[in-house]
Amino acid sequence: LILTHRGPDGDTIGSAAALCRALRSLGKASYLFPNCDITEKLRPFCDGLLAPEGFAPALVCAVDIADSKLFTKDAAVFADVCDLCIDHHPSNKLYAGATLLDGKASAVAEIIYDLVCEMNVPLTAEIALPLFLALSTDTGCFRYPATTPKTMRIGAELMETGIDFYSINRDFLETKSRARFALEQTIMAKCEFSHAGRVALVVLTEADMAAAAATEEDTSNLSQLLRCIEGVDLGVILRERDGLWRVSMRSLLPIASVVCAHMGGGGHARAAGATLNMTMDEAVSALKAAISAEMCNE
Amino acid sequence: LILTHRGPDGDTIGSAAALCRALRSLGKASYLFPNCDITEKLRPFCDGLLAPEGFAPALVCAVDIADSKLFTKDAAVFADVCDLCIDHHPSNKLYAGATLLDGKASAVAEIIYDLVCEMNVPLTAEIALPLFLALSTDTGCFRYPATTPKTMRIGAELMETGIDFYSINRDFLETKSRARFALEQTIMAKCEFSHAGRVALVVLTEADMAAAAATEEDTSNLSQLLRCIEGVDLGVILRERDGLWRVSMRSLLPIASVVCAHMGGGGHARAAGATLNMTMDEAVSALKAAISAEMCNE
Repeated sequence: LILTHRGPDGDTIGSAAALCRALRSLGKASYLFPNCDITEKLRPFCDGLLAPEGFAPALVCAVDIADSKLFTKDAAVFADVCDLCIDHHPSNKLYAGATLLDGKASAVAEIIYDLVCEMNVPLTAEIALPLFLALSTDTGCFRYPATTPKTMRIGAELMETGIDFYSINRDFLETKSRARFALEQTIMAKCEFSHAGRVALVVLTEADMAAAAATEEDTSNLSQLLRCIEGVDLGVILRERDGLWRVSMRSLLPIASVVCAHMGGGGHARAAGATLNMTMDEAVSALKAAISAEMCNE
Repeated sequence: LILTHRGPDGDTIGSAAALCRALRSLGKASYLFPNCDITEKLRPFCDGLLAPEGFAPALVCAVDIADSKLFTKDAAVFADVCDLCIDHHPSNKLYAGATLLDGKASAVAEIIYDLVCEMNVPLTAEIALPLFLALSTDTGCFRYPATTPKTMRIGAELMETGIDFYSINRDFLETKSRARFALEQTIMAKCEFSHAGRVALVVLTEADMAAAAATEEDTSNLSQLLRCIEGVDLGVILRERDGLWRVSMRSLLPIASVVCAHMGGGGHARAAGATLNMTMDEAVSALKAAISAEMCNE
């Protein structure tokens, strides 16, 4: 039984689906545990692979899950009985019986690709397509710094199976939903620059979300949009959700986690967040104070 | 002497620079002809390679130039004396004394990479960096359908020389100038959908361009932004320039050139254009009529 993480992305679903198919080609009774957070775009990759109700697994394997806290709600029951975890997060909590970890892999897909070769499973298009989904989405289509020559060569091998790789790139990396487009319209209209153009900030209310008919799925990487503007060191989204204010921050220099620490948050050096339980005006003030504290110190 | 095309992009400049360096490593007196349209971002790739005034070449080679009409203004003098053309456009006019053409190469960089190997020139980082620029920019960082397994493997070889490939991807594929951002703000604010959401149209005046402080460099691929919205088959920008109205169109289905043909324009099946010499209202009407003529016929 293969588990994928909450708020699933292309790497957890694609890697899990490829592993499941590879094991099946060896005659194993292999299934994906249904992910209750699955999105419409990712759902087809699970077709025909979902575990029937009451399936009693001999072995439970987590894919791309650094912490058992990231199991989906339904999968919490497996938190203490996970036999194997296959992951690429250096921060992995080693909660599983055994852990296959490669912190240098750009995506778990690289590890699954190696396993497929190691198990002498023929690399079919059925296995290559979900692996390409995983590799392409986790590396921004081979664009991010974690991409390596090995990533590129695996990409080449996957493409050689004849998969329609461009449909993956188009659907997952180019196409914007109408709601996402509406949300980006709002963000571009509300963007405020400060600190000599080095900070770009947008405050997004629940009313903005409703006006765009946007869901959580439409909100990924919004602060990255702002960070990519020339001269901007820090892109920040302050978003209302369930009465709280969530800060999401991306920086060019490694200052995002430091700024978020001022607000009781944290994360990676260049991608961090915080949650503020206060009014909008208070949240904006707290955020601006945290930013100014660090942007002056440089 | 190596020539690059007018309105230069990463492929013409990067491929030419890499070829120039490779020839130099064989002891050849090799130079780039100065490109009068060079942009600030591409300029550094020509550093130390530009031909001195009065340089009399023994051989003239055009890189990524399908037609001698695409020579820069200053290079027009070479139109009838071009000895060699290295290109990947199937539409190449075969104007040069000899033509090395590979219409299946995703970028001319692939052909130059093969030449570097063929000439037994060691692949140094100095050669790999401009080749990566060429390959990455012409394939949207390995995203477009013209990408092949060979493209990926060449990318891997280039990365292995230790170049800072991410700085190329960041500067050329992620970073937006403030003027470009302002232009996108305008485009998102002015976007109009029609034909049940299948057409997205923006009219951009010279006043809009001035308000965004945008230059020609900031206008590339604007219609692609619209084409990538979910459900949109046709993304269209109608832009005022020097008193004329320029149509730029991208489509998911192969209808862009057909629609543009109604206005006396043309281009590729999915990326086409036209120029209209009329008032704004007339141009909008002509454009809408051309679109409706084809969008109903399907």
